[in-house]
Amino acid sequence: MTHSPVDPADLTAALIRCPSVTPEEGGALRLLEGLLEGAGFDCTRVDRTGISNLYARWGAKGAARSFGFNGHTDVVPLGDEAAWTMPPFGAEIKDGMMWGRGATDMKSGVAAFVAAAVDFVQQTPPDGAVILAITGDEEGDAQDGTVALLDWMAQQGEAMSVCLVGEPTSPNEMGEMIKIGRRGSLNAYLTVTGVQGHAAYPHRAVNPLPAMARLVDRLSAHVLDEGTDHFDPSTLAVVTIDTGNPATNVIPATVRATVNIRYNDAHSGSSLTDWLQGQLDAICAEMGVTGTLKVSNSGESFVTPPGEFSDMVVRAVEAETGRTPTLSTSGGTSDARFIKDHCPVVECGLVGRTMHQVDERVSVDQIHQLKAIYGRILRDYFA
Amino acid sequence: MTHSPVDPADLTAALIRCPSVTPEEGGALRLLEGLLEGAGFDCTRVDRTGISNLYARWGAKGAARSFGFNGHTDVVPLGDEAAWTMPPFGAEIKDGMMWGRGATDMKSGVAAFVAAAVDFVQQTPPDGAVILAITGDEEGDAQDGTVALLDWMAQQGEAMSVCLVGEPTSPNEMGEMIKIGRRGSLNAYLTVTGVQGHAAYPHRAVNPLPAMARLVDRLSAHVLDEGTDHFDPSTLAVVTIDTGNPATNVIPATVRATVNIRYNDAHSGSSLTDWLQGQLDAICAEMGVTGTLKVSNSGESFVTPPGEFSDMVVRAVEAETGRTPTLSTSGGTSDARFIKDHCPVVECGLVGRTMHQVDERVSVDQIHQLKAIYGRILRDYFA
Repeated sequence: MTHSPVDPADLTAALIRCPSVTPEEGGALRLLEGLLEGAGFDCTRVDRTGISNLYARWGAKGAARSFGFNGHTDVVPLGDEAAWTMPPFGAEIKDGMMWGRGATDMKSGVAAFVAAAVDFVQQTPPDGAVILAITGDEEGDAQDGTVALLDWMAQQGEAMSVCLVGEPTSPNEMGEMIKIGRRGSLNAYLTVTGVQGHAAYPHRAVNPLPAMARLVDRLSAHVLDEGTDHFDPSTLAVVTIDTGNPATNVIPATVRATVNIRYNDAHSGSSLTDWLQGQLDAICAEMGVTGTLKVSNSGESFVTPPGEFSDMVVRAVEAETGRTPTLSTSGGTSDARFIKDHCPVVECGLVGRTMHQVDERVSVDQIHQLKAIYGRILRDYFA
Repeated sequence: MTHSPVDPADLTAALIRCPSVTPEEGGALRLLEGLLEGAGFDCTRVDRTGISNLYARWGAKGAARSFGFNGHTDVVPLGDEAAWTMPPFGAEIKDGMMWGRGATDMKSGVAAFVAAAVDFVQQTPPDGAVILAITGDEEGDAQDGTVALLDWMAQQGEAMSVCLVGEPTSPNEMGEMIKIGRRGSLNAYLTVTGVQGHAAYPHRAVNPLPAMARLVDRLSAHVLDEGTDHFDPSTLAVVTIDTGNPATNVIPATVRATVNIRYNDAHSGSSLTDWLQGQLDAICAEMGVTGTLKVSNSGESFVTPPGEFSDMVVRAVEAETGRTPTLSTSGGTSDARFIKDHCPVVECGLVGRTMHQVDERVSVDQIHQLKAIYGRILRDYFA
């Protein structure tokens, strides 16, 4: 069987032209399914609650060594469409940059690993499996995307020995950073309630606002930690305080605040919840108010400690870019938080600077460079 | 000329049936104008910017002694009309109570002083003038009501030697309280601005919320004073803090808060503005944010020190109710804040418990009692 290499830039352009704003599949997964089936991958659509996902395996199920790639074809909304310089689903190229929604996050990453995987299995069929777990629900609430794929894999006895997530990982320059973990992210919704009353008679009311203010001051001033071996210090940001009282002569009954905590491995969702509850209880006792705390933990912190897998990724990045990437655990959340429960996971991708913005765009050269990195990792892994 | 006494309860009922929700005149002032002209008062409609007001004088302009009454016929909106037990413009009587919007605030007060004044000038024509300054804009922004009347009086050379405001003044029992002044009321609108950013990278943002929280904590914890000779302690209430940020992964740029201060004669609008600005400046310097302060002062504090006029009112209340009223400066604001620049002013009226509420109602007996108090004060003043 002859095979001509897959051009990852052409594939990125074809994917950008699929309008796959979450939860729309937009034709993106269908396109990949056709390509991968043609290249000998076993493809299964794993759809759940209106979300489409694609599982593709080359090689035997249950192979001793299986290398997985994970990524998503869904994209965030366009924002102000009129503000785009180029058509957001156009994939037009100008001065070496390809423009469009998903150009960096992460149709280019998906195209690069699909191209690398297809070429690799065609040119040097490995002793093992190559698995592509591609989701249409990463930008949404993510519960029917990679989670659905992992659930289905567990049911089917499918597994990855290691997994590389193709999300953008470099802040500015190609190859400067890969991610070996992520901080956890927790939202705490705080309510403080007193007794409503007339502003002219504050002694007959219990104003919840001074209590909330003191609580927010204390939480904000608290140093959670100074950082750990693989993590920056945890951060806490109070992102909103709201009362919604339009009447200047009324002391309101209730005030709400939301706190976002990005935490490292010195904490857990549970330890932070206990701490927040303790702080709230103390304020309630001190100020004569009542309070409620609701916590939504979107992912515990995790890390794949530096070792064989990350070394392999670092070597490939060095060979293709001349840069030694830092091993970072910074930034927001990604589907790696689900995968870490199943196998070692590392994230390595393009420069993420324009992700989620109007005029999202990607260097065409860097798409080719990323395919080369992924190909090198595959060869190294199965060598 | 024969004269039959004016029934203040009938007059209250007739006024309640006039739907005079600010700024509607509703027929209330026309009704009073007809009655007072029939009783020998010189009446002038002093209308400004769509608001109707009524000035009525019995006796000579420029008399050496002139006793003034002030009140309003406009009422606040009905609120939830379906929740009223009785028709809100019906003035129906049940178990000795007359029901309707304005029953206590303050069509009954106006009816009582109109009835007392008419009877008094008919029965014992005084050596002096009796002046009724009745406005249709007390519940609105009040700038075209009593203020318009006082402006017009100054232009015309009309003046009151003393003035009694017929607002409800007793919290629970008839005769328990009169008001000889009021605290000032000031609203401060605070804005604190930082630099917006991603909640995962707080070091690249400047969060304004901790700064606002600390400022609110400090303002709320501050003791403005311990009270003065005629005043309770000043109070400060933070009535709202609002951000309006729906995104838990975004640190917002700006947060707003509103502070209401009720202050006694230890402060002025200007001294409090300086203090607030100083507190805001300190927070800005400390937390690296910027801030703005906008102040709206709806009235300085004032007091008519206890003396001849208040003694006269106290004696009349004692004689008619058997209770010795306390001389208070508590509560919200009233049109007395405008009158105090022209002459001594005291407020004396009914029980205010149901004012502004659904099912506002007044004791019919107490309307008669209030007319008797006002009649006694008039006789005493001109004796």
